[in-house]
Amino acid sequence: MGMTEALRDVAVIGGGMTVFGKFPERTHESLGREAMLAAMKDAGIKPKDVGFASCGTVYGGWCVGQRMLKEVGISDMEFLNVENACASGASAFREAWLRVAAGQCDIAIAGGVESMTTSPVAGKLIPPPPDDVDGQLGLTVPMFFALMMRRHMHEYGTTPEQFARVSVKNHDNGCLNPYSQYQRRLTVEDILASRMVCDPLSLLQCCPNSDGAAAVVLCANEVARRFTSTPMVVAASILGSGDYLHKWEDATFSNMSHKAAMAAYEMAGIGPKDIDVVELHDAFTVAEIMHYEDLGLCSKGEGGRFIDSRGPWLDGTLPVNPSGGLLSKGHPLAATGVAQVVEVWRQLRGGAGKIQVSGAKTALTHVMGGYVSGLESGAISVHIFKI
Amino acid sequence: MGMTEALRDVAVIGGGMTVFGKFPERTHESLGREAMLAAMKDAGIKPKDVGFASCGTVYGGWCVGQRMLKEVGISDMEFLNVENACASGASAFREAWLRVAAGQCDIAIAGGVESMTTSPVAGKLIPPPPDDVDGQLGLTVPMFFALMMRRHMHEYGTTPEQFARVSVKNHDNGCLNPYSQYQRRLTVEDILASRMVCDPLSLLQCCPNSDGAAAVVLCANEVARRFTSTPMVVAASILGSGDYLHKWEDATFSNMSHKAAMAAYEMAGIGPKDIDVVELHDAFTVAEIMHYEDLGLCSKGEGGRFIDSRGPWLDGTLPVNPSGGLLSKGHPLAATGVAQVVEVWRQLRGGAGKIQVSGAKTALTHVMGGYVSGLESGAISVHIFKI
Repeated sequence: MGMTEALRDVAVIGGGMTVFGKFPERTHESLGREAMLAAMKDAGIKPKDVGFASCGTVYGGWCVGQRMLKEVGISDMEFLNVENACASGASAFREAWLRVAAGQCDIAIAGGVESMTTSPVAGKLIPPPPDDVDGQLGLTVPMFFALMMRRHMHEYGTTPEQFARVSVKNHDNGCLNPYSQYQRRLTVEDILASRMVCDPLSLLQCCPNSDGAAAVVLCANEVARRFTSTPMVVAASILGSGDYLHKWEDATFSNMSHKAAMAAYEMAGIGPKDIDVVELHDAFTVAEIMHYEDLGLCSKGEGGRFIDSRGPWLDGTLPVNPSGGLLSKGHPLAATGVAQVVEVWRQLRGGAGKIQVSGAKTALTHVMGGYVSGLESGAISVHIFKI
Repeated sequence: MGMTEALRDVAVIGGGMTVFGKFPERTHESLGREAMLAAMKDAGIKPKDVGFASCGTVYGGWCVGQRMLKEVGISDMEFLNVENACASGASAFREAWLRVAAGQCDIAIAGGVESMTTSPVAGKLIPPPPDDVDGQLGLTVPMFFALMMRRHMHEYGTTPEQFARVSVKNHDNGCLNPYSQYQRRLTVEDILASRMVCDPLSLLQCCPNSDGAAAVVLCANEVARRFTSTPMVVAASILGSGDYLHKWEDATFSNMSHKAAMAAYEMAGIGPKDIDVVELHDAFTVAEIMHYEDLGLCSKGEGGRFIDSRGPWLDGTLPVNPSGGLLSKGHPLAATGVAQVVEVWRQLRGGAGKIQVSGAKTALTHVMGGYVSGLESGAISVHIFKI
């Protein structure tokens, strides 16, 4: 290897996103255009400045990125659509990072877009194919997470109330974020009393289907100060995929998230104690509790006590998902990973408004995506940023 | 910029593919597994050697690559699905190239897969959305190419027989390639008498819908000789996208193909006269004639005379599409760009059997993809290889 050292430093110089929500009247192009224009305006760049563009989508159909970019005047450069299920947005971001880092261009834009409301597939119950052994056994995504939740309760005494508090926190945060799909406070009682999806996982512990888009402009760090006085440096970019479930020794611990986070810390030359703010993949309450542990934000088995300590709260020692996360802000699949970068870009510049984490200088974003029979998951991505 | 010089040389060390055809009983996973296993066997690598994998698909659905790789024992490494319409396979190849070139890993695998037969979308007439001005005017893909064909006839006196001869040549070649969907010789008369799709473009001048998969193993050139005595070096890798149609000055000339080819020649440090064999995107007969010209294989307006000269025939001065091309070998969208690399890998090693181009040492592959309203096309890719 040894070449990674030769890669250039890359900085984020602008970001934009739509409000997340249900917009049955809006196309992928309309959502993407709004986010792309906002990101380009924020960065102070023109369409002709863009040397590479990537777009993540799961349900947007072919050449969705080209359709979006055409609307904002970007054409005639290198372009790529990427898909890695819920990690599609982070994958698009990483592509743009790699292009700039490897000297293929100086300025790149990464977008993510999803219109789950208008998709004929998204959010529908799709019968598993005959060779999907897990699916034939009923192991859909909520079922997997319900099993992990039950096991976490058994192993570590984590309580239903502790899991519910993750959703309370994230909805509290969402009420302060104008980009959040949900703008309502919930109590532990509301959450535990909501319809049971897969025992012990109730409806208000599962993220919604959402529509939305986000975009980020990246630049070679050596020229970033032409565009902004506060470039946000990409300190680590990691993309991985899951290993076989039969190798999984501990159902309370995501090994793929742990490995990706450790690789990211090594690349950034820092540890979890150095992180000021985290946006992580809380597709379910149990996922956030597990990711506290596998990302090293607290010790193994301590996730329940960490949420009780108010550590991950907005005013806590390490705020997690100040945006409202997937649970409250919403989860337009491929938009999520890019929107996380927009969120931390605002945080590290001190422009996050009511969800500002005071004095935040270092941030971590984390997504995992893609239920694939026999694998822990399809894709995992962790990024670390510094200002 | 300047960083490109710091990228490592990358070589192809193995390739594999399925026969192209109509396989309604086969899944994407089944097709992909066959190609991946063949490529890994050809390269002499094990699943654990793979540090990065990419997969191109248009209609395969989310995480199709992960589903394929799982079947061949590859997991727990960086993985990306990409989509760029008919250029998806070339885009997947370029991703693998860039990962190795930028030192992210030493060995990577790139795949492309499509099952158009089983897709509920592929090959169906989809009504254009209301904001697709071209589509609302009836400008579907064959219509565009029929207009270009008519204009080429008007400007340069190219004859229906000359266009038909492209299909004769490619079907002749397909009869010699066991991987070709069609194994039948056609005459100019057969082709001109076939059903009219869009005047003057008849059915046997249009590529078919196909199923198939292909895969290629890439390796840092500095270690390639551990695996093969004949590594095929990637001399150029270019991916671009189209410009706005309203800027298009000449309907007989693909500016995006020309620009990509010129960039590839510059990167490889050679010119079209140095190329020994070409696999190009003959989605329609007129496309092959135009690409002779825009890739610089003959002069502008001379495409008709070039096919008459037998230059691009298997025994000609510069064989084009010895595989049979899209017209005869078939066009399983995302598989095509990867399969082109497998074809030239066999050519440059002298293992192409009855379609062997004698003494071939340098090859060019070309795909373009994605009809997007208002743009010439969505994506273009040119690669050059040397042995």
